Amino acid sequence: MRILGVDPGLTRCGLGVVDSTPGRKVVLVAVDVVRTPADQSPHLRLLTVAEALDEWLAEHRPDVVAVERVFAQSNVRSVTGTSQVAGVAMLAAARAHLPLALHTPSEVKAAVTGNGRAEKAQVQEMVRRILGLTSLPRPADAADALALAICHAWRGGGAGSAVRASYGGADTLPRSTGLGLTAAQRAWAEAERAARRAGAVAPKR
Amino acid sequence: MRILGVDPGLTRCGLGVVDSTPGRKVVLVAVDVVRTPADQSPHLRLLTVAEALDEWLAEHRPDVVAVERVFAQSNVRSVTGTSQVAGVAMLAAARAHLPLALHTPSEVKAAVTGNGRAEKAQVQEMVRRILGLTSLPRPADAADALALAICHAWRGGGAGSAVRASYGGADTLPRSTGLGLTAAQRAWAEAERAARRAGAVAPKR
Repeated sequence: MRILGVDPGLTRCGLGVVDSTPGRKVVLVAVDVVRTPADQSPHLRLLTVAEALDEWLAEHRPDVVAVERVFAQSNVRSVTGTSQVAGVAMLAAARAHLPLALHTPSEVKAAVTGNGRAEKAQVQEMVRRILGLTSLPRPADAADALALAICHAWRGGGAGSAVRASYGGADTLPRSTGLGLTAAQRAWAEAERAARRAGAVAPKR
Repeated sequence: MRILGVDPGLTRCGLGVVDSTPGRKVVLVAVDVVRTPADQSPHLRLLTVAEALDEWLAEHRPDVVAVERVFAQSNVRSVTGTSQVAGVAMLAAARAHLPLALHTPSEVKAAVTGNGRAEKAQVQEMVRRILGLTSLPRPADAADALALAICHAWRGGGAGSAVRASYGGADTLPRSTGLGLTAAQRAWAEAERAARRAGAVAPKR
């Protein structure tokens, strides 16, 4: 399964593509940042991002688009700009008939570092290690887009075809569903839940 | 000059088209609301809005697109959804090579009612009167889109060709420029400023 991760932003929009293969292996395909000038009209900045997204969708042909879920920050102007870019990315996915996934920043950090409040440098370093790169991915601020794609590979979409089939190929992926689990992982999770319901001690792995 | 006003929203997106003629006269061309179901994936909801916008741009061929400037509200989820739709509307304007204008809700209210904090019902009633309608425009929640278009006609764009020329036809219109004034109004405003500078009593109209 090929995943396009989009870290939305009006000044810098990170794009990262990874291939996900069985056994949690992920491979870097492409990474870049789309920059737009702050003195340009906002609709032209959005057009620049939209055209870059369309090019990437045509060139890399991902199976799913994962976009960072935007939350309110202290800077309201930045939230609205970031949400506008997120909307443009979501629209690009819909126009390409691709399923969309939204992941929160803390989900992404937790997926790649084990800590939902990890620092940026730690995320970048883990992205480097997970993808088996000798140096940090460049541009460094695009590492978040790769982290997002990796997060999706591991959380929501390990079994890409199953996810797409069960959601009609064009719906939002649930944030945490177990659909990405292997059969063995699913069996384990079920056994654990059953044990909890029975009040028993959880079985040891 | 023909203006498409867009009141962005994911559940309801208001669209209103007015023609603006010299002497502050504005005429209703079309008004509607695009609705998308809350249980649908957000990227498909954005696609529905985007397709409606493209249809309206093709059918009504406006000279400018005016979008409400989104500000933070108490409901963060609503802000991000509203901003996503605003982004999609701004992108549609850019793809159609049209200039974009952003107006705040208080600018719109002040333009049509004289009070930047007017109630919704007052805005609807003034939209009805300004457009010379016998009853409130339907659907009523699209009146905001018409108010936005009227606001743009009066504040930013009475002299459409001049505005487009001076901004290269594809940039953000300034919020309050005087470009929309008639020659007589401009002369008056200049006289008033000159009088103020000279410390004189402002001339009576």
